[in-house]
Amino acid sequence: MSEIVVTLPDGSELSVEEGATVADVAYEIGPGLGKDTVAGVVDGELVDKADPVHDGAQVVIVTDQSDEYLRVLRHTAAHVFAQALQRLHPEAKLAIGPPTDEGFYYDVTDVDLDADDLEAIEDEMREILEADLPVERELRSREEALELYEDNPYKRDILEDEAAGDEELSFYVQGDFEDLCKGPHVESTGEIGAVKLLNISSAYWRGDEDNETLTRVYGTAFESEKDLQDHMELRAEAEERDHRKLGKEMDLFSIPEVTGPGLPLYHPNGKKILSELSGFAESLNVDAGYEPVETPHLFRTELWKQSGHYDNYVDDMFLLDVNDEEYGLKPMNCPGHATIFDQHSWSYRDLPVRYFEDGKVYRKEQRGELSGLSRVWSFTIDDGHLFCRPEQIEAEIRQVMDSIYEVLDTFGLEAHVALATRPEKSVGSDEIWEQSETQLRAVLDNQNVDYDLEPGDGAFYGPKIDFAFEDALGRKWDGPTVQVDFNMPERFDLTYTGEDNEEHRPVMIHRALYGSYERFFMVLIEHFDGKFPLWLAPEQVRVLPISDDQLGYAHRVKNELGDFRVSVEDRSWTLGRKIREAQDDNVPYMLVVGEDEAEAGTISVRDRQEREEQDVAVEAFREHLDAEYGEKRLEPDFLAD
Amino acid sequence: MSEIVVTLPDGSELSVEEGATVADVAYEIGPGLGKDTVAGVVDGELVDKADPVHDGAQVVIVTDQSDEYLRVLRHTAAHVFAQALQRLHPEAKLAIGPPTDEGFYYDVTDVDLDADDLEAIEDEMREILEADLPVERELRSREEALELYEDNPYKRDILEDEAAGDEELSFYVQGDFEDLCKGPHVESTGEIGAVKLLNISSAYWRGDEDNETLTRVYGTAFESEKDLQDHMELRAEAEERDHRKLGKEMDLFSIPEVTGPGLPLYHPNGKKILSELSGFAESLNVDAGYEPVETPHLFRTELWKQSGHYDNYVDDMFLLDVNDEEYGLKPMNCPGHATIFDQHSWSYRDLPVRYFEDGKVYRKEQRGELSGLSRVWSFTIDDGHLFCRPEQIEAEIRQVMDSIYEVLDTFGLEAHVALATRPEKSVGSDEIWEQSETQLRAVLDNQNVDYDLEPGDGAFYGPKIDFAFEDALGRKWDGPTVQVDFNMPERFDLTYTGEDNEEHRPVMIHRALYGSYERFFMVLIEHFDGKFPLWLAPEQVRVLPISDDQLGYAHRVKNELGDFRVSVEDRSWTLGRKIREAQDDNVPYMLVVGEDEAEAGTISVRDRQEREEQDVAVEAFREHLDAEYGEKRLEPDFLAD
Repeated sequence: MSEIVVTLPDGSELSVEEGATVADVAYEIGPGLGKDTVAGVVDGELVDKADPVHDGAQVVIVTDQSDEYLRVLRHTAAHVFAQALQRLHPEAKLAIGPPTDEGFYYDVTDVDLDADDLEAIEDEMREILEADLPVERELRSREEALELYEDNPYKRDILEDEAAGDEELSFYVQGDFEDLCKGPHVESTGEIGAVKLLNISSAYWRGDEDNETLTRVYGTAFESEKDLQDHMELRAEAEERDHRKLGKEMDLFSIPEVTGPGLPLYHPNGKKILSELSGFAESLNVDAGYEPVETPHLFRTELWKQSGHYDNYVDDMFLLDVNDEEYGLKPMNCPGHATIFDQHSWSYRDLPVRYFEDGKVYRKEQRGELSGLSRVWSFTIDDGHLFCRPEQIEAEIRQVMDSIYEVLDTFGLEAHVALATRPEKSVGSDEIWEQSETQLRAVLDNQNVDYDLEPGDGAFYGPKIDFAFEDALGRKWDGPTVQVDFNMPERFDLTYTGEDNEEHRPVMIHRALYGSYERFFMVLIEHFDGKFPLWLAPEQVRVLPISDDQLGYAHRVKNELGDFRVSVEDRSWTLGRKIREAQDDNVPYMLVVGEDEAEAGTISVRDRQEREEQDVAVEAFREHLDAEYGEKRLEPDFLAD
Repeated sequence: MSEIVVTLPDGSELSVEEGATVADVAYEIGPGLGKDTVAGVVDGELVDKADPVHDGAQVVIVTDQSDEYLRVLRHTAAHVFAQALQRLHPEAKLAIGPPTDEGFYYDVTDVDLDADDLEAIEDEMREILEADLPVERELRSREEALELYEDNPYKRDILEDEAAGDEELSFYVQGDFEDLCKGPHVESTGEIGAVKLLNISSAYWRGDEDNETLTRVYGTAFESEKDLQDHMELRAEAEERDHRKLGKEMDLFSIPEVTGPGLPLYHPNGKKILSELSGFAESLNVDAGYEPVETPHLFRTELWKQSGHYDNYVDDMFLLDVNDEEYGLKPMNCPGHATIFDQHSWSYRDLPVRYFEDGKVYRKEQRGELSGLSRVWSFTIDDGHLFCRPEQIEAEIRQVMDSIYEVLDTFGLEAHVALATRPEKSVGSDEIWEQSETQLRAVLDNQNVDYDLEPGDGAFYGPKIDFAFEDALGRKWDGPTVQVDFNMPERFDLTYTGEDNEEHRPVMIHRALYGSYERFFMVLIEHFDGKFPLWLAPEQVRVLPISDDQLGYAHRVKNELGDFRVSVEDRSWTLGRKIREAQDDNVPYMLVVGEDEAEAGTISVRDRQEREEQDVAVEAFREHLDAEYGEKRLEPDFLAD
């Protein structure tokens, strides 16, 4: 038999026989690993350990120690849910039940479920775990499968769509339950230590609003009760901090039905935060030699055809007809920036040319997918594009990385970094790919960045570095991307005159520091739990007069604090209530002024951590504010020890 | 016969007999005025002196001393052009030939004209002036008119459209020429002292792209050769300063064909100016208690139906279909701001609530009307809306006026102010109209503003104050409007709780300081002839090393100037060429550094008015820059005497 070669995570290559499975690869690496193998990741896709590998595949072995293990276990838990459901509600029809980042769901129909039903199903699920049923893969013929699902249009739909060509179909069986499924799964239901059903909602079949509505039951599963409990606590904490909840309580933004779904309106409190974020990005950009530009939101689709976005993006674009010509709202800012670059002739001495813009883009997501600020139709990218000579890539990427790390540092966020390299299908010469990948690696290595290598995961037009933010609850969020692009300069025929007096093609680099303001704002609201650092807080200081007699003095104090965002509490409440209200509003500093303070011309300072100091000179407090604001400190620290 | 009453410009009323003409009104006022009457303005429309007035009409008598006289004279000049054209090109067919602010045009067809033909026509026109032909109005029957224009589809179109109901049709006759025309005209062609044909372009019949293309000849006319010459000089100067020309030369913006018509892209130089303008407006707004908000560009048209804009604006809106629902790009920011206000419950103590936003709006103008930045599809309004109690109108309007005057003052622009009051058709009670008009007048009177009263010219939903800017060439441009609105709070059912604990309706005020950034930017480019004050200049200082040996020192000087927009000229040119280039680029300050300066650590300062000073300490210059920038001085004045 002939041999094939697969690549392992450390970059090493392994020869195995043609037809070898994931498990075979694991045994080839070592018998211990072979025995522990639960599943595999082949070319980025989670597969059963019995699935074959192909020549050139990237193979990762999944054991119960792997990050992916929980995903496999939750997939089995989804089957356990379906099994329990069918035991209690035999009339229920199953659609699909995949694992998710947080657990799993199963879409079902022909059954009338509400939240009260979940406990009984959960109990039944626990019985199934207790029974420790082996989970086994069985192959069935297409005929068998079609017969089995005679009355189930969803499974039949899968058989006729995703599985259209397959004559042998993979089923997983556990006790009295079987399900059409590619896997992978754990070996027995007993491996699942704890399950929990979370809530019921509805969903469209295949996420398409034109299809039927299904009942979606969300649940989660862990290896142990302890893990589940930790997760539920984190979840409760996350719900407390939910940006939709805090967004309303703190009057930051709204997404009213009348104006449209996924189209947020920012209220003064939210816009003040966004303006500070924008100003910070602008200062980093200007320091790094970026220049501001502005482009409209409406463009001829001709431009998107030229850039190539039309082919890949047209379904997500908002299109309209103007005088019998097709126009679209921009889903990206890059073609506009390339057009500005193209209005000029450039010399090699002018490069890099760097543009930035807070560009609001429009992408038509499915309405059912829209959620708060995390999935929207309109969002603003702190977008930047630079045009450079190929040998300038390293210096430019280094500078972008510096700015991104300054952002992370400023907000106390952790970063996860991944380098994605050349995929099989790509444009651009071997030389330029190698040159740019080498430069990207050099930046990461020289700066001692701990990064994941994602071979073959780059865009077809160039390699990229992806950032994910980790917030205070340890959750990860997609962050900015730094993207090298050999394609768009081609498509726009961008050139510069080299030292040799010949025309050359510049390299384009796409980059953002935050990514989208909407996503980043959401992360910040939840990361800070609404307790924004002074420089971001929409209301930075509130002056609380003990009685109305000190209202005049309170306003004088406010005026002495100059440009800071200061308000005076002028409602005739008790001091206790005034303090509670300011505390609820997450105001960093409260200045209490009574008769004594008014007389002495001082203030009593209180911060939202409930520390206090009396007899403070207003001038000394203002000087502290200047420093705390200027240095973008994370916590109010005038009263820190 | 019964009497009717008309109102004169000073507000006084005059009784005249029913059927009285404009001329009769003038004779009633005084026989001298009667004799001098050329035409009239009735309810804002320029009409023949022989036209009747109606009961309740606002009547202004036009004599050769009136502003409107030139318009009347130019209308006759358009007829003189048509007469000359038909003498030289009898095959030509006439469409329409109205006066404009700058002269007149006539749209013609069936004649092949180019710029070379204009001189001969102009000569023929002068003969007609010389002949001093009387211009006389004659009435013809519809039958006669239809016969006369048997071969002229345009005149027939007018007969069947605008003049559909009229059985008697007004013609103006001068010598061998007659034209279907409502007038008014001067009494004889000899009153026109000078004519000039300016250029030929094309236009669609009725401005509609679906109609035929006509040849449009532009010309102008004056009472004297001297006036014409002054005008032509101003015109030449204006052409030199044309913002489209300077916009390209100074690399401020572009409107490329590929991205779409009327959709400007701002290049770094232009965006830097816009950012300074935006920052200035923001500081004025924040000082005045406005809070920032942000709204998207895409909305359900449901919102525009609620606001009432859909009924009046739908033809100008960019509409699109999303999931079988109609959406539109916003042509205005107000409904978005009203929606934000509506997300809250408000107490009388909270009012006024004031929002501002640099809101980019989209209005679908006819493509043929688009021109540079003066007529565009996308433009940004420095928009603000406030919600107040009726008795707060005066204080709010006063504050807005203060900000607008600060803007005017900062740019050295003159203002023309007009107060437009309640029209016949309007919403809102007598009481609220009277209350708000009184408050608007009080502001204007108390601030000693010289304003035109435009009775009946307010919007149906409230009175307004209009500003026009007068630039350095004495040209007037539409500026911002301050608009009281009783309607939108009704339509959005906006309320606040009064001191009486009842629900009340707030008044909404719309206001801008610049109007649109595009329009204002255009005015500034032409007003300053590209020589922007330091605070606006995209490049504020250029360091010119005498030789490459001083490049290092030049960069040190740049660094010492901190955040100012400073560049170093690093091309190896002669100093003379470097200076010429900087001068051409309108850079306010050039810093020449040679061997002596590098050694002494000084600079030679040169400004764009070509003043010079040597041996200047960098620190002293930087301090001056801080002051000149901070005070937004109009001219570089470090070297002023």
